[in-house]
Amino acid sequence: MIDYPNHRFDITFRDPQSRARLGTLHTPHGSLQTPAFIFCATKAAIKGLSPAQMRAANTQIILSNTYHLMLQPGSELVAKMGGLHKFMGWDGPLLTDSGGFQIFSLGHGSVASEVKGRRMSGREKKLYTITEEGAQFRSYVDGRLHTLTPERAMKVQRELGPDIALVLDECTPFHVDKDYTRRSMHLSHRWALRSISAFQAHHTGAQALYGIIQGGVYPDLRKESASFVGGQPFFGHAVGGSLGADKEQMYDVVAMTMEQLPQDKPVHLLGIGGIRDIFNGVREGIDTFDCVHPTRLARHGGALVTTAVPPRDDKDTREHINLNNAAYRDDPSPIDPSCRCDTCTTVSRAFIHHLLKAKEIQAHQLITFHNVFHMNRLLEAVRAAIATGTLKEEEKNWIRGS
Amino acid sequence: MIDYPNHRFDITFRDPQSRARLGTLHTPHGSLQTPAFIFCATKAAIKGLSPAQMRAANTQIILSNTYHLMLQPGSELVAKMGGLHKFMGWDGPLLTDSGGFQIFSLGHGSVASEVKGRRMSGREKKLYTITEEGAQFRSYVDGRLHTLTPERAMKVQRELGPDIALVLDECTPFHVDKDYTRRSMHLSHRWALRSISAFQAHHTGAQALYGIIQGGVYPDLRKESASFVGGQPFFGHAVGGSLGADKEQMYDVVAMTMEQLPQDKPVHLLGIGGIRDIFNGVREGIDTFDCVHPTRLARHGGALVTTAVPPRDDKDTREHINLNNAAYRDDPSPIDPSCRCDTCTTVSRAFIHHLLKAKEIQAHQLITFHNVFHMNRLLEAVRAAIATGTLKEEEKNWIRGS
Repeated sequence: MIDYPNHRFDITFRDPQSRARLGTLHTPHGSLQTPAFIFCATKAAIKGLSPAQMRAANTQIILSNTYHLMLQPGSELVAKMGGLHKFMGWDGPLLTDSGGFQIFSLGHGSVASEVKGRRMSGREKKLYTITEEGAQFRSYVDGRLHTLTPERAMKVQRELGPDIALVLDECTPFHVDKDYTRRSMHLSHRWALRSISAFQAHHTGAQALYGIIQGGVYPDLRKESASFVGGQPFFGHAVGGSLGADKEQMYDVVAMTMEQLPQDKPVHLLGIGGIRDIFNGVREGIDTFDCVHPTRLARHGGALVTTAVPPRDDKDTREHINLNNAAYRDDPSPIDPSCRCDTCTTVSRAFIHHLLKAKEIQAHQLITFHNVFHMNRLLEAVRAAIATGTLKEEEKNWIRGS
Repeated sequence: MIDYPNHRFDITFRDPQSRARLGTLHTPHGSLQTPAFIFCATKAAIKGLSPAQMRAANTQIILSNTYHLMLQPGSELVAKMGGLHKFMGWDGPLLTDSGGFQIFSLGHGSVASEVKGRRMSGREKKLYTITEEGAQFRSYVDGRLHTLTPERAMKVQRELGPDIALVLDECTPFHVDKDYTRRSMHLSHRWALRSISAFQAHHTGAQALYGIIQGGVYPDLRKESASFVGGQPFFGHAVGGSLGADKEQMYDVVAMTMEQLPQDKPVHLLGIGGIRDIFNGVREGIDTFDCVHPTRLARHGGALVTTAVPPRDDKDTREHINLNNAAYRDDPSPIDPSCRCDTCTTVSRAFIHHLLKAKEIQAHQLITFHNVFHMNRLLEAVRAAIATGTLKEEEKNWIRGS
């Protein structure tokens, strides 16, 4: 039993037709309405937007990556500067992950590929070692050897000072067999218990701790992990590890995990941010999502759009348009005519196309602002649709061909 | 005689101790208080700040470069998109240059070096040809050959649609002799007359035209140019060409030019933005300044500071601090404790230092915002000091060792 005196999760409404629910997640730095999207300020900064702009784009909560910050500038420095909120100028709810996700991505191409089940070529080369104690890896900044244990992950996050911290887990790859997945899951469970002890020993009420469900794509393992993690004194849960080879498998994994989890705690789905995936996750009872997709896509010229923007052809089911495309050279319309964000009310696709061609960083800033606003607008619409039982209808505004 | 029905320059106060003056420059897109600083949105975008952020940083007026925009995306496209104001989302006063400055910079390393009198190594290679007709040059975008004549410079600027347009001139280099400077000046004078004719033929009242004074560092030539240009029906004047090898020579050139110019028209000093240079220019009667310095400096980690920030040592007379410096790694103070900008009230030097090391673009955005705010704050302080006869005292807040 851990007391979380400054955190509370109130479920305010449950959809009678699905596991979808509305909630309010209270943290020491304010509350957020769920379902919500969490934006990635990887190295303590959203690439392209200031904290004030994130607020202007209706952002409720952001996250930062322990892995990056422990290497640069170091969690001790962040603590000395007054903690991550003060350091980065963000006074709202803030989550940090445990650092595990990125360590393991060094060994397997990208963890995003793993989570989403893309198979690797044969050339993988592990850049980390896992022992019972923890994970050993080399810094991408200066090559120095680091060991991240469950205890250190708790210490580093305590120094960073987010509102929500995550336990250290092994983010089990997709390409391993069931036996490896089981052993990895059990290791993560033992690490979870050590994380809880370490967390509890220094708990001041500033942070709430989330456990992570592993088990890969195997129903019995997911069930076992959900049951084990769900029985621990975590404030909330995150669905982690490999979610399968395709969307169908991802949806199955999420469903089988959610069936097993306690119904009263907040649940986060790690690293997933596709619009179809969000609608699916919401129906399964997911409360928060995170993904670099909206901000990374923006840096490549991709702007998220609703179905108010006609598809290029019958086969176009994309959730974005690519503003590098020559078709936008003299297009005076905004990215999305249904959007009221600063970008859409101020400049045209033609202008952003020009900025992309001219390699002006303002292109990325303008699209990033739009994409962040778009995701917040999506989750706001989702919350309204849950309240009125109109999720199916709302989906038609966001997913082509739905 | 050209009528400028939508522009007006009101001189509201003259300093009895110098040529310094206060004014209001009225344009079709609003008014600005002078002396003022004009920020460079070279390719129709301030690198790092949206138009809304420029406003938030108290910006009165910006400029864009005809040379860059005529090549990419092309002035016809900008006209088709409703003109530069609408295209770039800036609804305030806007100036464009004639394109000459950049053409000639292709031939001489950088024109900035020329304006500021830095000598070139022997390897210069002209990438343009000047004839009586105009300047021929190759596009830096696609290598295509272009000819910019006084008439085309007027047409392109008419299509861009700024509030203030400049005549085409040859930006005479520093390293040429007096004879070349004289011939170049006379060519610019003939181009000025052709610019006036071309401007007048299509004048709708949307734009005001500025003439440019040439004559290099030679008092008799500057006098001749100021007298000739000053006698034409321009709305305002710009001091152009080489201003000499050092600050002393620059100040002499500005002084000898200002002595000859009509007292009732606005005067712009091209490409100069150092803080000492602004105080000097203001005393000589300069009304507006422009320079890429504040925004370019920001992209290299340089943040402008007042004398509220102590110098590193007795010899430190710099107008900025370099946030890449390891000394700022754990410095919790803002860039400038006397600054009330969003950056200084939100984050520390340590955070920006971290972002620079982590190569996060938000570093450039945060510093650019501060530098723009700083320049606007400087000019506001200068205007207040002119009004109260305290320029000398005010200088102590901005220039170390003054």
